[in-house]
Amino acid sequence: MLCLKVASDDAWILEAARGLEAVLADHAHCEMKAASNALSLAARHPDRPAVVRALTDLAREEIDHFQRVFEVLSRRGIVLGPPEVDTYARELRRAAAAATKPRVEPLVDRLLVGAIIEARSCERFKLLLGAVSGDPELHAFYTELFAAEARHYRTFVDLAVGAAGGDAALVDARLDVLSSLEASIVVRLAAAARRSTMHG
Amino acid sequence: MLCLKVASDDAWILEAARGLEAVLADHAHCEMKAASNALSLAARHPDRPAVVRALTDLAREEIDHFQRVFEVLSRRGIVLGPPEVDTYARELRRAAAAATKPRVEPLVDRLLVGAIIEARSCERFKLLLGAVSGDPELHAFYTELFAAEARHYRTFVDLAVGAAGGDAALVDARLDVLSSLEASIVVRLAAAARRSTMHG
Repeated sequence: MLCLKVASDDAWILEAARGLEAVLADHAHCEMKAASNALSLAARHPDRPAVVRALTDLAREEIDHFQRVFEVLSRRGIVLGPPEVDTYARELRRAAAAATKPRVEPLVDRLLVGAIIEARSCERFKLLLGAVSGDPELHAFYTELFAAEARHYRTFVDLAVGAAGGDAALVDARLDVLSSLEASIVVRLAAAARRSTMHG
Repeated sequence: MLCLKVASDDAWILEAARGLEAVLADHAHCEMKAASNALSLAARHPDRPAVVRALTDLAREEIDHFQRVFEVLSRRGIVLGPPEVDTYARELRRAAAAATKPRVEPLVDRLLVGAIIEARSCERFKLLLGAVSGDPELHAFYTELFAAEARHYRTFVDLAVGAAGGDAALVDARLDVLSSLEASIVVRLAAAARRSTMHG
């Protein structure tokens, strides 16, 4: 799906379906991290109007998503705890930093890492849809988020092409490399049996 | 004005009026920092729904303000450069950390530092109104922002009282201490002739 090279394993959705409260809590933290990351990228590149405009819009949307997940949690009496360490995102950024070919600007890589995280979220929301078919509130919400994540994936890839001076072939090649690295990370984390998180 | 113990000196507004482009650029960075700071505080206190709700709302509003300043800059052909080091906020946080009496939770102090920064912004927007009387776009914008900063000041103080378990007297006493420290910082920075910034 999108740029992804490996599907989430069946065990993830089975575990997630059994621990929907934990999935909701992790999802809230993911939205917050996505907002902070978009804002931080925009703040670091004030001389790039396309990046600033798209990523501040995206940050507002992610904050809106966060607030909506937070209210779902509140209504269900779930108190949100501190976020767990985001092993998936940390490993993806490390792997990207260590991958030297094809060489791209750091901004291009940060945008492509954003794209990949959105792609994985998109895939997981699609899987979750089946698990929440008996919960109309979550089903409607996840349907909307599935579409939003696909849209954000496209935003990040388009911004990466712009940041690479329009070199779409270079961005495609780099995305291919990073997607392979992401596939290895997802397989490794699944083997380590980290469940009930959006990306673990 | 609000909690402030010293007015900005006349030289600030004279310099600001001569360098409105620099003021606009600094203002854009201030809105971005305010959004990031609000989001970071909300993310660190997920178990405090009042803080989470108010500060994620505030972050969305600050991003909206940032986007509007960014468009004003774009229309005027001003490219936003990287932010300068925020000496004012850094010194205010340091001074608060060093002030041990009356003792409050770190969250209370972070909220009160937020309140003071909003109060100083509010005062400066009022001063700027006189300087932009011939610029209807900025005059309308600064009028709105003057009111917004006063509202945000109140939000931060109210959240601080909540975070202090409702002890308004303690929060008042602490705000008095921090406001005195802020006054010293503003006087010192004015003497060092940092101009064309919102808080320097």
